[in-house]
Amino acid sequence: MDPGLRVTGWGVVGAAGDGFRSLASGAIATSRNGSPEERLHHIFRELCAVIERWRPAEVAVEDPFVGQNARSAFAIGEARAVALLAAAQAGLPVRPYTPTEVKLAVAGYGRSDKAQVQELVHVQLGLATAPEPADAADALAVALCHHLRRRAEARLEAAR
Amino acid sequence: MDPGLRVTGWGVVGAAGDGFRSLASGAIATSRNGSPEERLHHIFRELCAVIERWRPAEVAVEDPFVGQNARSAFAIGEARAVALLAAAQAGLPVRPYTPTEVKLAVAGYGRSDKAQVQELVHVQLGLATAPEPADAADALAVALCHHLRRRAEARLEAAR
Repeated sequence: MDPGLRVTGWGVVGAAGDGFRSLASGAIATSRNGSPEERLHHIFRELCAVIERWRPAEVAVEDPFVGQNARSAFAIGEARAVALLAAAQAGLPVRPYTPTEVKLAVAGYGRSDKAQVQELVHVQLGLATAPEPADAADALAVALCHHLRRRAEARLEAAR
Repeated sequence: MDPGLRVTGWGVVGAAGDGFRSLASGAIATSRNGSPEERLHHIFRELCAVIERWRPAEVAVEDPFVGQNARSAFAIGEARAVALLAAAQAGLPVRPYTPTEVKLAVAGYGRSDKAQVQELVHVQLGLATAPEPADAADALAVALCHHLRRRAEARLEAAR
């Protein structure tokens, strides 16, 4: 999940042989005209429906970059809380990833640009084209990052 | 409701004759050792239980003061989102109040100090002593502020 008050991206990634594939992805947009509670509740309901539909075993959430602007940090916090709550409501473990961790895992380089990351995500997930919209692609990147981490952890565990 | 990640205060106020009275109040504390999702989920569950138990017609939420610190604004946003979601889940209208609005409504003066506001809250709610903890008292002040506003609005409406 890539939470945002305006647009929240989500993506479901499953293991497929040695690799991974995208099972579904999408983006939940809210209207600027809605009240905060309407917008947050819309995101919450949609994320709960995605979890209900796809029954993931775990949830990876991108920890948004919090800049210097307190007002926007406040809104970012609100959106992230909704993503965490949707996962917690379903009893699913949540793992947060920073944007840099996602880039490193997916592209092997933390400073890769957005286009490179998206290209690497859709290639690694066996998609013919980059997922649309960009928020869905971002969420798939987070999910892929989580799978790559889990696989690395499993290999480390096995090697011990 | 007075949302906070560490402590969220809540209070239920009902009309009683010409005045108002406190029906219940409390505070939901979370452990610093818990994960963000555990803490937010705990607040959410407890607030949903309060709403279920007391069945308010409306919810007033104190819009926290967001300072310059983006990190703390982020955490404040998370806690507020949970309060808004709990109300939205129950289908209740939410009304936000700034700290200054609460002080103005309850004490008639936006710069009143915390002790004065608490004293005025417990007197106006017919409580023998100030509610404990302070977070519960703060939440009662928000609920009282909302009632006072609603009454003023009703009188204005009647006068037209």
